[in-house]
This record gives sequence, C-alpha cells and structure tokens, in this order.
Amino acid sequence: MNLPADFTAWMRQALADAEAALERWVPADAPAGLGEAMRYGVLDGGKRLRPLLVRAAAEAVHGAPIAALRAGVAVELIHAYSLVHDDMPCMDNDVLRRGKPTVHVRYGEAGAMLAGDAMQALAFEVLTPEPGADGAQEMAPALQARLCALLARAAGHAGMAGGQAIDLASIGRSLDEAQLRDMHRRKTGALLQCSVLMGAATGSTTAAQWAALADYGDAIGVAFQVVDDILDVTQGSDKLGKTAGKDLEQDKPTYVTVLGLEAARAEAKRLHAQALAALQRSGLPDREHLKQLADMVVDREH
Amino acid sequence: MNLPADFTAWMRQALADAEAALERWVPADAPAGLGEAMRYGVLDGGKRLRPLLVRAAAEAVHGAPIAALRAGVAVELIHAYSLVHDDMPCMDNDVLRRGKPTVHVRYGEAGAMLAGDAMQALAFEVLTPEPGADGAQEMAPALQARLCALLARAAGHAGMAGGQAIDLASIGRSLDEAQLRDMHRRKTGALLQCSVLMGAATGSTTAAQWAALADYGDAIGVAFQVVDDILDVTQGSDKLGKTAGKDLEQDKPTYVTVLGLEAARAEAKRLHAQALAALQRSGLPDREHLKQLADMVVDREH
Repeated sequence: MNLPADFTAWMRQALADAEAALERWVPADAPAGLGEAMRYGVLDGGKRLRPLLVRAAAEAVHGAPIAALRAGVAVELIHAYSLVHDDMPCMDNDVLRRGKPTVHVRYGEAGAMLAGDAMQALAFEVLTPEPGADGAQEMAPALQARLCALLARAAGHAGMAGGQAIDLASIGRSLDEAQLRDMHRRKTGALLQCSVLMGAATGSTTAAQWAALADYGDAIGVAFQVVDDILDVTQGSDKLGKTAGKDLEQDKPTYVTVLGLEAARAEAKRLHAQALAALQRSGLPDREHLKQLADMVVDREH
Repeated sequence: MNLPADFTAWMRQALADAEAALERWVPADAPAGLGEAMRYGVLDGGKRLRPLLVRAAAEAVHGAPIAALRAGVAVELIHAYSLVHDDMPCMDNDVLRRGKPTVHVRYGEAGAMLAGDAMQALAFEVLTPEPGADGAQEMAPALQARLCALLARAAGHAGMAGGQAIDLASIGRSLDEAQLRDMHRRKTGALLQCSVLMGAATGSTTAAQWAALADYGDAIGVAFQVVDDILDVTQGSDKLGKTAGKDLEQDKPTYVTVLGLEAARAEAKRLHAQALAALQRSGLPDREHLKQLADMVVDREH
C-alpha cells in the first residue's frame, strides 16, 4: 500500500496521541486485576482505525481536538470490548488476537467477561469527564450527551450487538447479499460510521454535510467488512495477527462465499467510490484525511 | 413486613410505571432473538428497588417525573445485565433467577452474553432520548450527560464491575470486614447509591443535600448486601427465587461468615440507623418514601 508521506506523518501522530490517551484513561488501578485485563485488551495493538476516523472527521469540521480524542478512545474501547467478548469460547472461541493470546486465555473467562463489561462502561465515563479532567472544558454537556447518544446506539441492539446476534444465528445458514450487508452494516459498519459522526459532532456541520458524512461512514463501514472477508481467505494468520480462515471453518457466510472472490473485490471498489462521492458531496474543504482513510480501508493487506 | 398503606399504594404505582416503561423501551424487535433475550432478562421479575429509589429521590427534590422514569429504567437495565452475566457458567453458574431459568439456560451462553452487552448499551440509549421521544423535553442535554456520568461510573471498574472482580478473586480466600465492605460497596452499593443520586440529579439540591443523599445511598447499599447475606443462609430457594446457600457452597466470604449471624443482623440495624440519620440531615421535607424504602431494604424477607 502506497500512502502519501504527509498522510503517513499525520497518521503516525494521530496513532501516538490515541495510544497515549488510552494509556492515560484506561485505569491501571482497577481492583483485583480488572484494570490489568482491561489494559491488556485495548492497549498496544490494533489498527486504531476508529480513533483515526474520529480525528479526521473532527478536523474536517474544525472540531475540538481533545473532545475528538475522548470520542476516539471511547469508540476504541467499545470496539476492543466487543473483540474481548467475541473471542470467548461461547462465541468465536479464538485464542489469538493482534498476535497475542486473547484476554480469556490470559485472564480466564470470567476475567474477560468482566473486563469487557467494564470497558463498555469506561467508554461512557470517558465521554462524560468530571469538571477539571483533561479536555472537560472543550466538552459542553450537550456535546457529551450527543456523543453518548451516538455511541450507545451504534454499540447496542440496533447496531453492533444486533449484528453479532445475526452473525451468531447465521452459522451454517445461507444469507443472501442483502441479509449479509444488513448483518455487517450493524456488526462492523455501525461503529465505523459512528466514529465519523462522533468526530463530526465535535464541530459544526449543516444537515447536508452531516448526511454526506453519514453516507461516507456507511460506505467505508461495509467496505471494511468486505475487505476483511477477502483478507480472511487470501492472507495467513501471521499477517492478520489473528486466526485466518475462521469464517470458512465455522461455516459463516461471508462476502467471498456469497459473491465469490472477484465479485467481492469489485464490491469493495464500488463502496470505495461511493465513500469518495459522499465526501465530495459534503463540500468540506478539509476532507483529505478522510479520503486517504477510505483508500487505506480498501487497500489494506491486514 | 408491615408497610404503611399509603407507601404500599405508592410502591404499587411506581412498580407499575417502571414495568410499563421497561416494556415500552426494551425493544421486542432487535434482530435474531436478541430483543427476546433482553426482555426475558429484565421484564417480569425483580424487586425493582433501583427504580423505586430513583423515583423516591426524584420526588424528594421535586425532579422531573419522566426523567426519573428513564433513569430508573437505565439503572435497572444495568442491574439486570449484571445478573445475566453473573449467572453464566464462567461466573456463578446459576440456573435459577427470579424463579425462572436463567438467560443462558434459555438462550445459550453467547445469547446471554450479547443480551447483557446490549442491555448495558440500552441503558445509555434510554438516558439520551432522541428529540421527540417520551420525556425528551424533560431531559436537558446537561441532565442527560450528568445521568450518563453517574451511571457509567457506578457500573464500571471503580463500581459494580470492580466489585465483581474482587468477588471473583475472593473465592476460597478470607477477607476482613473492611475488605468485605469495600467489595460490596462497589459490587452492590455503587448502583444503589447511584439510583438515589440519579433521582436527585433530576431536580435541584444544595451541595449539603446531595452529600446527605449520597450518605443515605451508601448506607442502604451496604445494608442491602448485609441483609442479602443473612437471607442466603436463613431462607430457602423458593422464597428467594434464586438458589439459596450459594455463597457458602462456593466458599465466598459473606457478612455472615465474617461477622457471624447475630453481628450481621446488628450491622444491618446500624446501617439502617445511619441511612435514616443521613436522610434527616438532608432536611428535605418530602423524604418519607426514601425512609420507607430504607425500612423495606432492612426488613425484607427475600
């Protein structure tokens, strides 16, 4: 993947800031090893795509930087908790994640379940800072409430958790393309779109700009999953940092099994074009990093 | 237990309102059976003590009734999700709750984990209503943010989840009274205290009144657990609606094992008196229902 040098530099800074914020706001001192398990589940790993999307969207609308950092940490905590729970024996039963043993392998199943539960709560703690905490002055109560509203809906029954329920129910069944898209729009897309919208909420937009950013987020959300399904069959575990070929092994429908590999690749391209068209339609002048993130989502190799 | 007739009538109305609100706001249409599992986990059962505390505290500060109803539903959702996860095989491995098979027995472990996860998210959805939703006009963004902040902290690593982590680590170990109290103050007390404070947040209080209500909530929170530990050894499963004697069987330290039965009873009385003194100190004229709820917590038989 060939990324422009200025984008690479921007990304390096954004990743360093997100990592430092996670390091600061995910507690080491939670009782009885809980903090350790939470930190193990979220620090030092992951592409941090969601915080990058929040930041790029916030920059496009000239949003408040520390509010965007808090939103990025919150959405990453929701993403990370979902992986911790998803890897457990009663779900995907995976032992490898981001190249490390999964949380339940390291801290036991009860420890992993509690760590995930506490990470979800922490996301909403981070969005509602006490007066005097880092960035609290940049986060008016109305922004805090808006960010909580967006994140709760993306994480909940109509979003990520709902998509996981469909995923669970789909094992061994065949889905058509519309059903598959609905599942992934909830399971993966909702939180990616939410990242864009949380970033947008930190600044000001017209209704049309908001709608365009929502379309952009929706398109890259589905594109991300299409590419994930492609990589699951074309890359090895070492490159992915997680067990490859799991979907096939578990007899889960994917874009590759439903459409075939070539058509899945074409679908990823089509969604990429759709994301760029939506961005263009937003008319926001500072949308370059959002464009480059869309490129990265589609061209990534892991 | 002998409760005054007007309190019984108030409670009947409050319970009916809480039940109707849960019925309305916990979705039946979430995908792939998720809504059904969520509703099974929270509807039609439970003492609803937390919504009662929210309502009584809201009335004491002349708070907005629908805001209090939303807060009551949100805190009950957090409580119910914690029971769903707590009953799972990797935690307490309980098959009976509120006289019915537990959620994982009915919907499988993955279904129970997801339902609990979605219930936690739903709590924050209920606290941040879309404009036009029931009661949204009573909930200024600042109140939404305040309620989310209180609930997230009570549910998270420093509160309920932290207490559960200590509980898990305490199996087969001996705790002294201070450690036991710290565990229960987090595991059970934080959410009960939070119920009182969420109710208080719907109206207006002085700092001194807020502190007095926090003390009241803290005292009844610990008292609730002391009484729970007493009932676990003195009542049968049929009366409790859950498996009795579990703590002893699992070799978990309780107030009864640490203090002995008589000293545990004395401790419950002492905490009850402490709660009433804090209420008195609040000086709020409409505190009668909070007083009666404290009586009920200590005198209950299940």
